[in-house]
Amino acid sequence: MNLHNLVLADTKPQTESASLRDRLFETRALSTALAAPLSDEDQVVQAMDDASPTKWHLAHTTWFFEAFLLKRFLAGYRVFDERFEYCFNSYYESVGARHPRPKRGLLTRPSVAEVRAYRVFVDAALDRLFEEGVAPEAEELIELGINHEQQHQELLLTDILSLFAAQPLKPAYRESGPGVVAGDMAPLEWMSFDGGIFEVGHDGEGFAYDNEGPRHEALIHPFKLARRCVTNAEWIAFIEDGGYATPTLWLADGWNTVKSQDWQGPLYFEKAEGGFMQMSLAGFRPVDPAAPVTHVSYYEADAFARWAGCRLPSEFEWEAAAASIPVEGRTLGAGHMRPVSAGPGARLQQMFGDVWEWTGSAYLPYPGFKAAPGAVGEYNGKFMCNQFVLRGGSCVTPERHVRRTYRNFFYPHQRWQFTGLRLAQNA
Amino acid sequence: MNLHNLVLADTKPQTESASLRDRLFETRALSTALAAPLSDEDQVVQAMDDASPTKWHLAHTTWFFEAFLLKRFLAGYRVFDERFEYCFNSYYESVGARHPRPKRGLLTRPSVAEVRAYRVFVDAALDRLFEEGVAPEAEELIELGINHEQQHQELLLTDILSLFAAQPLKPAYRESGPGVVAGDMAPLEWMSFDGGIFEVGHDGEGFAYDNEGPRHEALIHPFKLARRCVTNAEWIAFIEDGGYATPTLWLADGWNTVKSQDWQGPLYFEKAEGGFMQMSLAGFRPVDPAAPVTHVSYYEADAFARWAGCRLPSEFEWEAAAASIPVEGRTLGAGHMRPVSAGPGARLQQMFGDVWEWTGSAYLPYPGFKAAPGAVGEYNGKFMCNQFVLRGGSCVTPERHVRRTYRNFFYPHQRWQFTGLRLAQNA
Amino acid sequence: MNLHNLVLADTKPQTESASLRDRLFETRALSTALAAPLSDEDQVVQAMDDASPTKWHLAHTTWFFEAFLLKRFLAGYRVFDERFEYCFNSYYESVGARHPRPKRGLLTRPSVAEVRAYRVFVDAALDRLFEEGVAPEAEELIELGINHEQQHQELLLTDILSLFAAQPLKPAYRESGPGVVAGDMAPLEWMSFDGGIFEVGHDGEGFAYDNEGPRHEALIHPFKLARRCVTNAEWIAFIEDGGYATPTLWLADGWNTVKSQDWQGPLYFEKAEGGFMQMSLAGFRPVDPAAPVTHVSYYEADAFARWAGCRLPSEFEWEAAAASIPVEGRTLGAGHMRPVSAGPGARLQQMFGDVWEWTGSAYLPYPGFKAAPGAVGEYNGKFMCNQFVLRGGSCVTPERHVRRTYRNFFYPHQRWQFTGLRLAQNA
Amino acid sequence: MNLHNLVLADTKPQTESASLRDRLFETRALSTALAAPLSDEDQVVQAMDDASPTKWHLAHTTWFFEAFLLKRFLAGYRVFDERFEYCFNSYYESVGARHPRPKRGLLTRPSVAEVRAYRVFVDAALDRLFEEGVAPEAEELIELGINHEQQHQELLLTDILSLFAAQPLKPAYRESGPGVVAGDMAPLEWMSFDGGIFEVGHDGEGFAYDNEGPRHEALIHPFKLARRCVTNAEWIAFIEDGGYATPTLWLADGWNTVKSQDWQGPLYFEKAEGGFMQMSLAGFRPVDPAAPVTHVSYYEADAFARWAGCRLPSEFEWEAAAASIPVEGRTLGAGHMRPVSAGPGARLQQMFGDVWEWTGSAYLPYPGFKAAPGAVGEYNGKFMCNQFVLRGGSCVTPERHVRRTYRNFFYPHQRWQFTGLRLAQNA
Repeated sequence: MNLHNLVLADTKPQTESASLRDRLFETRALSTALAAPLSDEDQVVQAMDDASPTKWHLAHTTWFFEAFLLKRFLAGYRVFDERFEYCFNSYYESVGARHPRPKRGLLTRPSVAEVRAYRVFVDAALDRLFEEGVAPEAEELIELGINHEQQHQELLLTDILSLFAAQPLKPAYRESGPGVVAGDMAPLEWMSFDGGIFEVGHDGEGFAYDNEGPRHEALIHPFKLARRCVTNAEWIAFIEDGGYATPTLWLADGWNTVKSQDWQGPLYFEKAEGGFMQMSLAGFRPVDPAAPVTHVSYYEADAFARWAGCRLPSEFEWEAAAASIPVEGRTLGAGHMRPVSAGPGARLQQMFGDVWEWTGSAYLPYPGFKAAPGAVGEYNGKFMCNQFVLRGGSCVTPERHVRRTYRNFFYPHQRWQFTGLRLAQNA
Repeated sequence: MNLHNLVLADTKPQTESASLRDRLFETRALSTALAAPLSDEDQVVQAMDDASPTKWHLAHTTWFFEAFLLKRFLAGYRVFDERFEYCFNSYYESVGARHPRPKRGLLTRPSVAEVRAYRVFVDAALDRLFEEGVAPEAEELIELGINHEQQHQELLLTDILSLFAAQPLKPAYRESGPGVVAGDMAPLEWMSFDGGIFEVGHDGEGFAYDNEGPRHEALIHPFKLARRCVTNAEWIAFIEDGGYATPTLWLADGWNTVKSQDWQGPLYFEKAEGGFMQMSLAGFRPVDPAAPVTHVSYYEADAFARWAGCRLPSEFEWEAAAASIPVEGRTLGAGHMRPVSAGPGARLQQMFGDVWEWTGSAYLPYPGFKAAPGAVGEYNGKFMCNQFVLRGGSCVTPERHVRRTYRNFFYPHQRWQFTGLRLAQNA
Repeated sequence: MNLHNLVLADTKPQTESASLRDRLFETRALSTALAAPLSDEDQVVQAMDDASPTKWHLAHTTWFFEAFLLKRFLAGYRVFDERFEYCFNSYYESVGARHPRPKRGLLTRPSVAEVRAYRVFVDAALDRLFEEGVAPEAEELIELGINHEQQHQELLLTDILSLFAAQPLKPAYRESGPGVVAGDMAPLEWMSFDGGIFEVGHDGEGFAYDNEGPRHEALIHPFKLARRCVTNAEWIAFIEDGGYATPTLWLADGWNTVKSQDWQGPLYFEKAEGGFMQMSLAGFRPVDPAAPVTHVSYYEADAFARWAGCRLPSEFEWEAAAASIPVEGRTLGAGHMRPVSAGPGARLQQMFGDVWEWTGSAYLPYPGFKAAPGAVGEYNGKFMCNQFVLRGGSCVTPERHVRRTYRNFFYPHQRWQFTGLRLAQNA
Repeated sequence: MNLHNLVLADTKPQTESASLRDRLFETRALSTALAAPLSDEDQVVQAMDDASPTKWHLAHTTWFFEAFLLKRFLAGYRVFDERFEYCFNSYYESVGARHPRPKRGLLTRPSVAEVRAYRVFVDAALDRLFEEGVAPEAEELIELGINHEQQHQELLLTDILSLFAAQPLKPAYRESGPGVVAGDMAPLEWMSFDGGIFEVGHDGEGFAYDNEGPRHEALIHPFKLARRCVTNAEWIAFIEDGGYATPTLWLADGWNTVKSQDWQGPLYFEKAEGGFMQMSLAGFRPVDPAAPVTHVSYYEADAFARWAGCRLPSEFEWEAAAASIPVEGRTLGAGHMRPVSAGPGARLQQMFGDVWEWTGSAYLPYPGFKAAPGAVGEYNGKFMCNQFVLRGGSCVTPERHVRRTYRNFFYPHQRWQFTGLRLAQNA
C-alpha cells in the first residue's frame, strides 16, 4: 500500500457516519503510509527541539491508544513493552516520568522495525476491542485518539520538512505532487461582515477538542476580511520595502526576534539568482508568487498587516465569516503538500486548507472552560498561555481534521508549520 | 523637602482641576523626594535586566520632557547635554540608538549630581514654557510626561526593592511606614455581578493612555468576584498543600518556570524559624497573614486560582465591577509602601491600591486601537503581545495614577512588581 | 565478514614491514566491520556535540583519502559526489566551508548505504593508485590516512557508547566480549626511576604524527610511578570519602564543573542496589572493582591524585618509564572493549591499552615544532591549547596505533573516551 | 594625601630593608589613594564578571588581614562586622560561603564610607599588632597581605578601565599622566641566549608566592629574544594584513573566540577617522604607534607570533634572559599608567613594567610544588589549569611587586589586563 493510494483514501468522500472502526484503521494506516517514503535514518532524527522524529510520532500515537484505551477497556491486555511508556509519553505529567523532549532524536532503539511491530500489535488489540464491543466512554477516547493521530500526521510532515531543510543535500520528501500550475494571482478583494452577537464554539455535533467549547455568545463588531490569503508576491514586496529592517512595524518582542535570529524572510526562504527559493516537501524550489506565503510567524504576520495598513482578524471574526462557506479546501487529501493559489470566485477562498491563518487572538480558555479530569485533561488546557490561535487548516492537515471551530495554537515566534495569514479591517 | 512631606503632598486631595503646571512640578518634586533616602551608590546599580537604576529613572523621565516637549515647543531650547539622549532613551526606536537596557547599571557617569542638575535645568525650561504659554498639543504631551514619570516612580521603588533584596545586608528603603496594625483577615466573600453588554475603555474625560481606548462595547457573562484580594495566609496554605510541587495545577509554561527557577513561594519569600519572612521596602520582615499576597507571577496566580477551584477575572469583568465603587485605596500617598489587610465592609475592597491584580486577559489592542503617530506611539502598542493585563494599582502607585480603565501589563513570569490577585467565578 | 574475524585480523601479529597496501585495506575493512553490529538508525545519530555519528566517521575517513590523496595523485580521478566535501570535511579551514560539527547528526542523507558505496568507490580508486604506483609523498599521505582512520575507529566506538548511554533502553554494542574474569586486584606498588636528561619524542623510525616531534632532550627529576592504573575499587573509596564534595581537593575550574554538572562519579556510573553500575560497550553492567577506572576527566584524575597524596606523571616521565617495556597491551585487538584488571608481575603493567592515562602535562608544541604546510598541517598544531596530554592507548585503540611517543589530548572536562590514570610521586 | 604624592611615595627608592611596618602602611595608603579620583558611584559598579568594584577591592584586601592575621594573632580582636566575611571573601572555600563573584557589583551596602571606616579600623588594629610584637608566622602573613593588596591595586585599575570603557561618556580615570612623548619606534633587534641547564624559580631571598617555587633545574635550548615588546604599529600591520580574518594563523580555540566575539583588534581598540583610538586610563586617545600593544589575549599573541614567523618565549627562557638585567622598569610608580615606547639601547628593554608578556608556557606547578596548608594554600595552586603564564609586570603593577621569578597567569581569552608580548625564536 503506497502513500498515493492512502492519500486518495483520505480524499474519498466520507461522512461522519463512516464507522468509527473504519475511521480508526484508516487513520492508523495513513500514518504508516506517510512514513513510507522515509528511510529508517530519516525517521529517527530530530532537527530541533520543537520537532519530533517520525518514528516517535508513530510510536507516541500508538502509545496513546495503549495507555488511555487498551489498558483500561480491553480485558487482559498486556502492554507491548513496559519501557515504551517512558520513551513515548509526550507531556502527560499525570502518567509519570518520560524521556525529555529535546532528546527524542537520540532514541535509535527501539528501532523503526520495532515501532512498526508495536503498531501492528496495538492495531490487533484495537481490533479485538471492537470485536468485544466498545463502551461509550471508550468510543470517546477512540475518537480522541483518531484526532490525536491526525494532529501528529501533520506534525510528522512539518517535522520532516524541518529535518530535510537542515541538510546540505536538501532532499525532497516527495519528488512532485499532483500537477499544480502556478495560478494567476487574484487581486485582493474585501468581503464585509456585520457585527452583532454570535454563537461561537463547538455545538456538540461530532467530535471537537475540549478547547473549542463551551459554545457561547461573543460580540463582534462589523469587519472586512480579505477574500484570500496574503501571497508570496505580496510578501516579497514587504521584504523589498524594508519590512525586516523597520522596527516601527514590529511588536517589541517580534523585533527582538528579528534581530537575534537574523530573520530576513519566511522560514526556508533563500535569496537566489533571479528570485527567491524556498525549501518544501517537494524539495528546494522557486517561490510561487501567487501561492499563499507560508512559514511565517505571528510576529511577521502582525508586522505585515501593520505595513499593509490592516490587521489580523480575531478568531471569532474568522469563525463568523467561515459560517458562510462549506468546510472544504486543499488539505492533505488534495495531495499538493504545499499551499497553492486562490482561483477567481465571489466568495471567501482558502479558508480551509492551504495555510493555517494566524489570528490576533491569544489562545485562552472560553468562558466556562473546564479541562477534562485525568491525563487527557492535559491535552489542551495547560497550553493556554503565550500562544496565538490559528484557524482553518493547512495543505498537510488530514482532511477530516478541519472544522469551523477548530483552534490551533502556536507561540508567536514559531514558523515551521504551514502558517500564513489573511488580512482584516474594521468595517 | 523630605519624602514624608512630599508623600503628604501626594495624598492632598487634588482634583483634576488642579493646574497642569502645579501637577507637573509636584510630580517632578516627588521623584526627587523618592530618591532622597538613597545614597549615590544605591542610585547607580541595576539588580537585574528588568530593573533600572534610580538615577536612570530620574534622568529618563527628564529626557522625556526634553526630547518630546522642550525641543519642539520651547523656542531656543538647547539640550543640557547632547550625549544624554543616547544614555537615557529607553526604547524609542524612532528617536535613535540608545544604551542597551541590561547595561544601564554601568553608567556611573553622568553622576547622580549631574542628573540632579539635569532635572533642575529641565524644570527651569519647563517653567519658561509655562510662562511663554503652552499650546494644546504641548499640554497633551505634558500630561503624558506627568503620567510617564508617575509610572517610573512606581518602578523606581520596585527596582530599589529588587536591588536591596539581592544584597546580603538586606537594607530597608525606609525603616518603617506609618503604623499599620496587621488586621484581622476578612473571610472570603463573593459579590455577584450580572452579565450583559457594557461599555469598557476610557470615555475621553481626563487623561488616559492610548491603550485604554477606544471605548467600546464588551459582552460580559454573569460572574462573581471576591470581595478582597487573596491573602498571605491563603497563599501559605497553597504552599503547604504542595502547590509548588503539583504539575497539574499549572500552565505548562508556568510549570517549566517553577522547575527551572526553583520557585517555592512568592518572590522575596524565605522560610524561617516560625514562619515565612519577606523582603520589603521596610526591610526583611515577617509575612503579615492578613495582607494581600504580593510578588506573585501570572503563572502562580493562575495556579492558585485553579487550586482554589476558581479562576482569575477578565479585565472587563474587573472594570465592570469597579464601576460600582469610588476610585480610592491605599496607593503611594497612603505611605504604607506595602499591601495591608482589607477591613470589614459590605462592598468590594482593595480594588485600587495595595496590589496590582492579575487578570486572565492577554494584553491586546482594543477593537479599533491605533497607536499615536511618531515616537510616543511606541509607548504602549508595541508591547501588545505575550503579556497579561493587571488592574487596580498598588501600594506604590502614585495616587492620581489609578483609574478604572487603567491597563497595566507584565509578562506572566514577572513578579518584582507589587502583583497579587483576586479570585473570580462564573455565576 | 564479521566483526569478530576482523578483530582477530587486527590481533594478527603484523610487523611494520607488512605492506602499506595490506595495512591500508585492513584498516579500511576494520572500520566497516566495526559498524556492522549497528543499525542504520544507530549510525546516523549524534548524542552530543563532541561526538560524531558512525556514518560520519565512515564517510569522513573516506573523504580524507579522496581530498588529500586521490584528487592529487590518481590521474583522472573524479570525486564520488561533489557535495560530500561540504558534508564530511571535519575542521580543515584550508579546504573550505563545511557542515557544522554539532549538526552532523542531522545528515540522514547521504544514507548509510550511500556512504557504504562511497567507501567501495574510494577503495577501488585506492586500489588503482597502488596498481599505477605510489609516489613517496603519496605513501606518506596513505600512512597518515591509515592512522587518521584508526583514530576515528576509536572515536566511532566511544561515540556509539555515548549514544547508547543516552538511551533509556541502554543497548549493548556487543552482548559480551571474550571471557574476562574479574581479576584479583593487585596491591599498589611503586617503581622508581632515575632523573637525568632523556631524549623524548619520535626518532623518525616508522610513522608518527607531527606533534610527536622534534625529538629533543628533556630534563627529568627522579620519580616513582605506580605499577598499574587506579582501579574502580580505589575510585569508589574516593567517592565514599566525599571526594566529589570536598572543594579543597579540586582545581578551581574542576570544582566549578563538578558543581555545574552535578558530577558524583565517573561518566556512566550509576549508584544501584548493592553497588555501582556503569554503561559500557557490553551494556549496563556492575562495575568491576579490580579494573582500571575509566571515563574520568582530567579534573577528576587530578583531584583523585591529590586525595591520594600523589600526583599525575608528566608526559616525559611516562615516556621515559615506557622505554623499559615492550609496546604491548590490551588494545582493540584483544577484543575486551573495556579495561580489565592488571595481573601480578614485576614490571609496569597496563601502560599500553586498557585506558588512556591523563598526564599532568599541558598539550603544547615541542621545542622546534612546525606544523606541516597545507591542510594536513591543521591536524594537530592548532589544538595545542587548553588540553592535556594522555598517553598509552585504550581498550578500543587499534593495536598498531599505540606508540611510546604517542600524544593523545583532550580538554580537562572531557570524559567520554576511555580515560583513566596512573599515580606518580617525587622520588 | 593625594594620588600624586602616593605614587611618588611608590617611586621612592626603597629597599627590601624598609621596615615591614612601613611597607604595610604605605601599601594600605596607596590603595586608598588609587580610589581617590573615583566617585562613590564609580566604586560600586562591576562591568563584567571578571572584574570587581573598587570598593570590593578595598574591602576584600582589608578582610584578608582581618581573617588571616588579626583574628589569629591580635588578642581580643573583634571583627568590624560579622557580615563582611560573607560579603568580601573572594574564593576561599576553606573559609566558608561567600557572595557570588558576578554579583559583587550589587553591593551598594556596605557603603564606600563604611568600607573606608573598615579600612581605618583594621589599620588601627594592625598598628596595635605591631606595637604588641609580631610573631614570625604573622610576619609572613603580613608580607603575603601586602603582596595580595598590591595585586588588587593593579586589578582595581584594570577593572576601573573596563568600567569606564563600557560607558558611552568614556571618562578618564586621570586626565593625563606625566608627560610622555611618543617615542621613536626602535627597530626590532634580536638578542641571543645560550641553552643549558638553568636554575629557575625563587631562591628564597625575600618574598615570593608559593607558585614561584621550588627552585629547580630547567633545560633550555638556545634561543633569541626580541629586544623590546611588539608595538602598536606592528599590530596594526597585522590587522591590515588580515590577521583577524585568517583562520590558519590561529589556534582552533582562538579562532572560535575571534568569530564568536567578533574580535577585530585588541580590546578597547576602535577604528576612527585617521587611525585607531583606544580607551585608556587617560580616556579615549589615539593609539601611540611606538608603544607596546596592550589588551591582547594569549590567542592573539600566539597568532601574531605565527604571522611574524616567530613564537612566544617559554617562561624559563624569559626568566633566564631576565637574569642579565636589573629589575627596573615603568611600573605604577612611573605614573604613566600606560605602556610607553622603548628607547634605544643595547640591552633588553621593557622586561619589567609596561605590559605583562604572554609566554607560551601553561600555568602548571613546578616540580615538587606543594600548596601551603589551610586557606592561604588556595591562593595559587587551585588555578593551575587552563591558564598561561605572563611575566614581567605592567604599567600599573606596584613597583615593588615585580620579580624575575614572578608568575602571573590568565586564561588565554582574557585581555582586560595590560597584556602584551615579546617575540622569540629558536637560535
